[in-house]
Amino acid sequence: MELYLIRHGIAQEATSEIRDEDRSLTEQGRKKTQKVARRFKDLGLSFDSILTSPLARAQQTAEILISTELSSQLEKCSYLAPNGSIKDWVEKWLKPKQYSPTACLALVGHEPCLSNWAEILIWGEAKDGLVLKKAGTIGIEIPETLPIFGSCQMFWLTPPRYFI
Amino acid sequence: MELYLIRHGIAQEATSEIRDEDRSLTEQGRKKTQKVARRFKDLGLSFDSILTSPLARAQQTAEILISTELSSQLEKCSYLAPNGSIKDWVEKWLKPKQYSPTACLALVGHEPCLSNWAEILIWGEAKDGLVLKKAGTIGIEIPETLPIFGSCQMFWLTPPRYFI
Repeated sequence: MELYLIRHGIAQEATSEIRDEDRSLTEQGRKKTQKVARRFKDLGLSFDSILTSPLARAQQTAEILISTELSSQLEKCSYLAPNGSIKDWVEKWLKPKQYSPTACLALVGHEPCLSNWAEILIWGEAKDGLVLKKAGTIGIEIPETLPIFGSCQMFWLTPPRYFI
Repeated sequence: MELYLIRHGIAQEATSEIRDEDRSLTEQGRKKTQKVARRFKDLGLSFDSILTSPLARAQQTAEILISTELSSQLEKCSYLAPNGSIKDWVEKWLKPKQYSPTACLALVGHEPCLSNWAEILIWGEAKDGLVLKKAGTIGIEIPETLPIFGSCQMFWLTPPRYFI
């Protein structure tokens, strides 16, 4: 099974008037995310489902992926909010779904959560060893055998500037 | 300091007549590596030096990078041969050079050595958690402070198909 961990695009700064969860993508963030989505499409990528953090900047990023027809399924997922636990997500969300070994999911969220999730999947613990830029992607292969933590492999980590 | 670990391109299979160290890039391997080199160039990448394993397929890959004018300096480096030790390379090759913190080196070599080197730099030990395809690249930022093992960060890992 493949997981694509995608960080939201460039967003408004937080101010006293805009709550963190309401921060929107900027025009630049929207355009760069659209370019990333089109490159995914050109490369033939598609996802069985796109899961997004409930925060506005992540939802808007996920909606760009959906409007580029990278998936027909979009789902808000509270585990992808900042400080969400990957162990809870795997136990309470992923396992009950019983996806096929060839399934491919996109998870849209935040830093440092996503790169920490990647490290826990691959090396069993998070050590801040990965740099995931806004609108950047990490690609991970999840093996069929359990336990998955510490036994996944990373095949892709890219900032937008080396991709679009 | 930035390190770009680049795996050699697609090479001939070993046969009873061709020794492993003499295996050349195939025509397909040469073309794909040229495309990777041109994308590096288009992105504005350049290297203070390109180090290569002494094996033919790695040298030929490094020569393609040189002919694309990604560096003016090419050096054979026995530490990059299969089973070369990154700890020896850092102690005996890198430290005596006293490169500036903004230096940028390309290291052309083999698997699983290169992805193991990356893991040792980032997480302190190799666990086969990275997939580095032929003509693929790993980008690593080395901090100025020592020790470097277990304290580097990865900002890029790409197979050619998601890059060229």
